[in-house]
Amino acid sequence: MKLFSSGASPYARKVAVAAHEAGLIDRIEIVSVSVTPVSVNAEVAATNPLTKVPTLVLDDGTALYDSRVIVEYLDHLAGGRLIPASDARWGSLRDQAAADGLLDAALLARYERALRPEPLRWAEWDDGQIGKIRRALDVFEAGFAPSAGAPQIGDIAIACALSYLDFRFADLGWRDGRPKLTAFAEAFNARPSMQATQPA
Amino acid sequence: MKLFSSGASPYARKVAVAAHEAGLIDRIEIVSVSVTPVSVNAEVAATNPLTKVPTLVLDDGTALYDSRVIVEYLDHLAGGRLIPASDARWGSLRDQAAADGLLDAALLARYERALRPEPLRWAEWDDGQIGKIRRALDVFEAGFAPSAGAPQIGDIAIACALSYLDFRFADLGWRDGRPKLTAFAEAFNARPSMQATQPA
Repeated sequence: MKLFSSGASPYARKVAVAAHEAGLIDRIEIVSVSVTPVSVNAEVAATNPLTKVPTLVLDDGTALYDSRVIVEYLDHLAGGRLIPASDARWGSLRDQAAADGLLDAALLARYERALRPEPLRWAEWDDGQIGKIRRALDVFEAGFAPSAGAPQIGDIAIACALSYLDFRFADLGWRDGRPKLTAFAEAFNARPSMQATQPA
Repeated sequence: MKLFSSGASPYARKVAVAAHEAGLIDRIEIVSVSVTPVSVNAEVAATNPLTKVPTLVLDDGTALYDSRVIVEYLDHLAGGRLIPASDARWGSLRDQAAADGLLDAALLARYERALRPEPLRWAEWDDGQIGKIRRALDVFEAGFAPSAGAPQIGDIAIACALSYLDFRFADLGWRDGRPKLTAFAEAFNARPSMQATQPA
């Protein structure tokens, strides 16, 4: 399998961490590409019309995206190693969705601050996205319970989202007043899967 | 169950159509709310920090989001009625992701054109999003195969995405040069699930 990825994409990192944790990373060839919302990478566009990473190309040429679909496919290959079954399933998938939503907001704020020409930036848009990030962090601090055993997709997604904030939004100070989340990130970031996939 | 929804949200409509098709709509109380990226709806924020619709609140108070997670939960309640099992699963989930990605681009273009103050609009951003929409439409025209039997989530998501283009991007002329997709939409839009959930 071939995975289109980017060193700065937190969604691609989530997939890579999941592949490490599920023991599948050796079956995946990672192809680093550069994509932005205002340019078209022809190599990626040939398999994914949205021209986003991550995109997984199976050996028969089938393209799978986005990161959620790839995670579910990896979970299938690994016999259910990444997404809990029965009742715990919905909480873990919801946690992943919350982390992805935090990242959607962070990416939109990043594009507003770093990609859009300065005279065209809109403070209320940035404020709205940062508000989503802060509220999601508060919800994680109040209610997120890391998995007791091997990491599940909720843990992985939240850890990658927090690490992206360290990477691009250090000035947000997400650890302030959030000791439980800080302790979770410190422990999770020490895992080999996270160490092997540092953003670049 | 209570579903926070909005008459203009294509993701909320996807969930409502799925609930109709799975025979679950009578178990769901739909609560119409208004949300935008630059305002905070307190009622929605109390259950979903991303303050987005759709958000499903279960009878025990558990909140599930986003639309993908809700669809998977409804599929579980309906005994696998919405997402195919085994090999067809990945294509259907990928089709849903492509339709959702088309809608992500459409919503960003919509916000650029209708929400952002006119002097702050960036043509390249709009062009980039519209390019994603056009490429996704071309991929659907070339490769999408509607389910032979009852609609699956890929069919539902694509139909809702096309209908959103009719609602907000009529000038895009998405039917031009895409006869297969046009025929699919005409047939699918006649279904009671689509008729009962027209955008407003």
